[in-house]
Amino acid sequence: MGAGQMAIDRSFSVAVSGVHDASLDGEIQRFVARLSRQTGIPFRPMTSTPKLQIHAEHKREKVQKPGEDESYELSVAEAGATLSAPNPLGILRGLETFLQLVEITRSGFAAPAVTIKDQPRFPWRGLLIDVSRHFIPLDVLKRNVDGMAAVKMNVLHWHLSDDQGFRVESKKFPKLHEMGSEGMFYTQAEIREFIAYAQDRGIRVVPEFDIPGHSRSWFLGYPELSSGPGPYSLEGGGVDPIMDPTRESTYKFLEKFLAEMAKLFPDAYFHIGGDEVDGKQWNANPKIQAFMREHGMKSNQDLQAYFNQRLQKILAKNHKSMVGWDEILHPELPKTIVVQSWRGQESLATAARQGYRGLLSFGYYLDLMWPAARHYAVDPMSDAAATLNADEKSRILGGEACMWAEWVTPENIDSHIWPRNAAVAERLWSPQTIKDVQSMYTRLNAVSLELEWVGLRHRLARIQMLHRMAGTADIAALRVLSEVVEPVKDYDRWPDSKGPIDFHAPLTRMIDAVSPESDVARQFHDLVTAFAQSGYKDQAIEAQMRARLALWRDNDAKLRPVLEQSALLQEDVPLSKDLSGLGAAGLEALDYLDKSQTPPDSWRAAQVALIEEAKKGNADLLLMVAGPIRELVEATATSARHSTQ
Amino acid sequence: MGAGQMAIDRSFSVAVSGVHDASLDGEIQRFVARLSRQTGIPFRPMTSTPKLQIHAEHKREKVQKPGEDESYELSVAEAGATLSAPNPLGILRGLETFLQLVEITRSGFAAPAVTIKDQPRFPWRGLLIDVSRHFIPLDVLKRNVDGMAAVKMNVLHWHLSDDQGFRVESKKFPKLHEMGSEGMFYTQAEIREFIAYAQDRGIRVVPEFDIPGHSRSWFLGYPELSSGPGPYSLEGGGVDPIMDPTRESTYKFLEKFLAEMAKLFPDAYFHIGGDEVDGKQWNANPKIQAFMREHGMKSNQDLQAYFNQRLQKILAKNHKSMVGWDEILHPELPKTIVVQSWRGQESLATAARQGYRGLLSFGYYLDLMWPAARHYAVDPMSDAAATLNADEKSRILGGEACMWAEWVTPENIDSHIWPRNAAVAERLWSPQTIKDVQSMYTRLNAVSLELEWVGLRHRLARIQMLHRMAGTADIAALRVLSEVVEPVKDYDRWPDSKGPIDFHAPLTRMIDAVSPESDVARQFHDLVTAFAQSGYKDQAIEAQMRARLALWRDNDAKLRPVLEQSALLQEDVPLSKDLSGLGAAGLEALDYLDKSQTPPDSWRAAQVALIEEAKKGNADLLLMVAGPIRELVEATATSARHSTQ
Repeated sequence: MGAGQMAIDRSFSVAVSGVHDASLDGEIQRFVARLSRQTGIPFRPMTSTPKLQIHAEHKREKVQKPGEDESYELSVAEAGATLSAPNPLGILRGLETFLQLVEITRSGFAAPAVTIKDQPRFPWRGLLIDVSRHFIPLDVLKRNVDGMAAVKMNVLHWHLSDDQGFRVESKKFPKLHEMGSEGMFYTQAEIREFIAYAQDRGIRVVPEFDIPGHSRSWFLGYPELSSGPGPYSLEGGGVDPIMDPTRESTYKFLEKFLAEMAKLFPDAYFHIGGDEVDGKQWNANPKIQAFMREHGMKSNQDLQAYFNQRLQKILAKNHKSMVGWDEILHPELPKTIVVQSWRGQESLATAARQGYRGLLSFGYYLDLMWPAARHYAVDPMSDAAATLNADEKSRILGGEACMWAEWVTPENIDSHIWPRNAAVAERLWSPQTIKDVQSMYTRLNAVSLELEWVGLRHRLARIQMLHRMAGTADIAALRVLSEVVEPVKDYDRWPDSKGPIDFHAPLTRMIDAVSPESDVARQFHDLVTAFAQSGYKDQAIEAQMRARLALWRDNDAKLRPVLEQSALLQEDVPLSKDLSGLGAAGLEALDYLDKSQTPPDSWRAAQVALIEEAKKGNADLLLMVAGPIRELVEATATSARHSTQ
Repeated sequence: MGAGQMAIDRSFSVAVSGVHDASLDGEIQRFVARLSRQTGIPFRPMTSTPKLQIHAEHKREKVQKPGEDESYELSVAEAGATLSAPNPLGILRGLETFLQLVEITRSGFAAPAVTIKDQPRFPWRGLLIDVSRHFIPLDVLKRNVDGMAAVKMNVLHWHLSDDQGFRVESKKFPKLHEMGSEGMFYTQAEIREFIAYAQDRGIRVVPEFDIPGHSRSWFLGYPELSSGPGPYSLEGGGVDPIMDPTRESTYKFLEKFLAEMAKLFPDAYFHIGGDEVDGKQWNANPKIQAFMREHGMKSNQDLQAYFNQRLQKILAKNHKSMVGWDEILHPELPKTIVVQSWRGQESLATAARQGYRGLLSFGYYLDLMWPAARHYAVDPMSDAAATLNADEKSRILGGEACMWAEWVTPENIDSHIWPRNAAVAERLWSPQTIKDVQSMYTRLNAVSLELEWVGLRHRLARIQMLHRMAGTADIAALRVLSEVVEPVKDYDRWPDSKGPIDFHAPLTRMIDAVSPESDVARQFHDLVTAFAQSGYKDQAIEAQMRARLALWRDNDAKLRPVLEQSALLQEDVPLSKDLSGLGAAGLEALDYLDKSQTPPDSWRAAQVALIEEAKKGNADLLLMVAGPIRELVEATATSARHSTQ
């Protein structure tokens, strides 16, 4: 930190020295437009002295490479700022930092005086977006790429095929997209344009075609690729349909197909999936069983390794390094492959020890509805990886957040990715030692707001969805409820036992609109903790808690008529009632604490029963204030009060 | 109204009979996409029985005509709906009605059973958008065209040139856009694409090139057209620069230019402006004075009429009917012209009496920050027009709302147009007898929400602007203040005496973000009125008022720190303080009313003084709750209480 600040006003302009190409010009134009949106200042070409001097030494790679230098140095002083980097990629990262520095102050918009020397910890900082289970149009992907650039991520892992849809136009095998996408796919021209868009923003695009499992959508057009009898449809669940790795025709198909895709996707890495091969079709197919016996294969894993070896050779011929989920790890595969760990950090460490490069996704699944802090706590170098030697550690390239699309649509995908993805992005960019959670949340709030100016709809879409449910814009009481609940976690929304998910159902319930993480509940919990630390004496904190609790207690009366008149909200009636009860319980607990009275055990037992009932949730939502309110109720026991004083 | 309702669920689909063309297919695709956004249901092509049967008799005109049939009949029953119309234009209007009917009910989305036979009262229902003073990009215009279609307007009056900018690419005279637009203009290809977009949505595009006044932007490239010496720049105020109507070269220029534009804009009408010709340059130019003497012209109005006659002939040669502001009305002009009245309803009636067709815009200026009810009360057939005979009345084609762009940017233009423009649209579509204001506001609220699904940002942009001002998303207290203020009215923000407006200044103040009309203040006024009608006894109403008043009284303490730390909000500190005082005054007044006590005159005098001071406003904003709170204070006088009991 330096002294003072640099004003951002109408006289702001940018000058460039060093290398200069169309990509850098585009960067700067976008930067000025963003700064203009953020500040509302309509900048015009100026003749005055430029306020921001930009200097890049040499050009970027035509196709961005993993490990390409992303470092930059940014210096802001009252009179002006300079940003220098080895190449325009570092300039991109530095411009994002500059935008984060600009804030409204008493004297106008300004960036504080600072000197920053910055570079990423990991070369591979990615976000997977699954476009198979729910198709996500390119405009939505583009704004998410903008968001990734804003938090300095550098890989979009595009999960392009799965059981529920094949999303890429293939000219060699047109029945893939014609029969496997219900008309929802990207043309090759669109893909090329999108990759250029991402490259301009410093984001590599790594395609994934998930084989041999997760491949039902291929078999609608080409059933001969499958290990089972068919017929196949996009509907239905499970991961049973699987490619037949024993037929040469499968490899002939894949050779042609992968050659086509290798040309379409310029990145040096190519993801072949490889996860969750349950092998039921293999077990049931006598020809496949005979093949395995013939080749001395002892398990389906051996068969998959054989398949992967063949794939790897095809990819190598097309100048691609193969990436796959951790199931592909097998001693017969060459060390050039990259293993993406989703089942645990152990497999990442194992791969590194065996000489394989790896990526961490375990702990970064955004679809599991975890709070940002939980993702933030997961570090690719911690747990099993902590014991690796330096050489082994160097094989850990980074990680990827994963947005699996069972429960997201173009409407709500932004709010499932953001702002939590920013916490993963920081984990992968910043030193391992940066891990203060309070500080992370403070900065996450700021980033969340910035992402609005980037064009993401994570906050606004939520409001619109509540409008839809309520049938009115008068949603004050509905917001109160929606802000203290969270979706159920992990796979609790739809356990496998429920059978196949209906991917054509509307996603318009409260669970689809609310934040994966309740800021209000977290803040209330912080209040309860601070109140306990004050020996239940801090009156300012108590007043804040009482205001919240009274709001919750009284909310049901206002909200009930809204909930009852809407088919989309009726399931939330019990939640609203429970919130009211929780508010009342919390207020009564505070009354006892105020009077230093120990309530009868029967009162406490009744409250705890009510709270535990509320905690179970309803409509796939959890009432996140139940926990902290239970802490208040329990504090009314003499022993609890003593222990904190 | 019939009985029951038609469910809108995943089985919904549309079938078409009668004429069928690409335009109708596009209509239906957009309709289904809108319905899907609104309900969140991902409709897919269905094989089941279609729920909505559409039938159009014959095709639309290739270029939409004023007076083209827009009628339709819509019948909704439990089993299904039918929509029929003479042509796809009527289908467009009927589909918008259908979308308005769909709402969330206890059993899901549904449209109530109804039979509707509908057609517009006026053939010309327009919105003028000024893109000269602030350039408005095409994506913003497009979503506003979508909004116009949603409220069944049918003319976009595109105010394309004015002193501050010339916004159309001219191939014949490229210095018009090159030197007159600061690079912000529409290419001819963009214009053609935009006109097709509007035509698809049943909207005619009528271009306006405002001459001979309001034309400074022309003179940067072509100073020889002007009546004064120049040099000219886009900066600066006034309307002095004016074309020279006495030189033949001016008409040679205009002949070429208008021929080019007549081809670019297919509509049969062409607007030449003609307003506010102050004539100072004419008075100061000896050659022009000599010309007038030579031709026996007694006034500048005669000279303008001469100019307009020449223009009218050029336009007629290009098969265009001339439209102009009411200043063009002059007995020497043929009856084919259309007069747009902005200075009063009298001029509309006068034109109709003289045999001219006319449009009303007086009373529909959205930039004057009037409440919707005030625009809604203005009817083209009322006031001076009420005394016209049937023949004369038939010459009144309709009206246009006007969005002059002194104070709008691409960011906030939606919120200056919507939802108020919907009130003007209804005025021009529905019978004159439909004028209940309470009902209008109920429907306006519903339409405002619907316009969010159309894609307009009138509500969301306001929130983002408050985020920017506050530098945080935590804007609860800021919203409380922002929702009880309105911008100053008419031209009070910038009286002519202040000199030229700076059109390059950021529009990021509170006045730029707030609604032209405070719903909260209107609702509070309704409460005060209802409370008075109850003899100051209705406790439920009083409780609602007290909650509001306490919120206002206590808001300043929360808001002050936010206001003080932002350069954009500091000017609002006095407003926040005044609101707090108003809240306290209102609460004290209620205390007196509760106790049936008459407070000392000195108390009342002090409150009235405080209220009147608050009423003056600050930062170009008016505190709209001052009025109703004064009513409460005055009611504490014995006489007031008696008079209402």
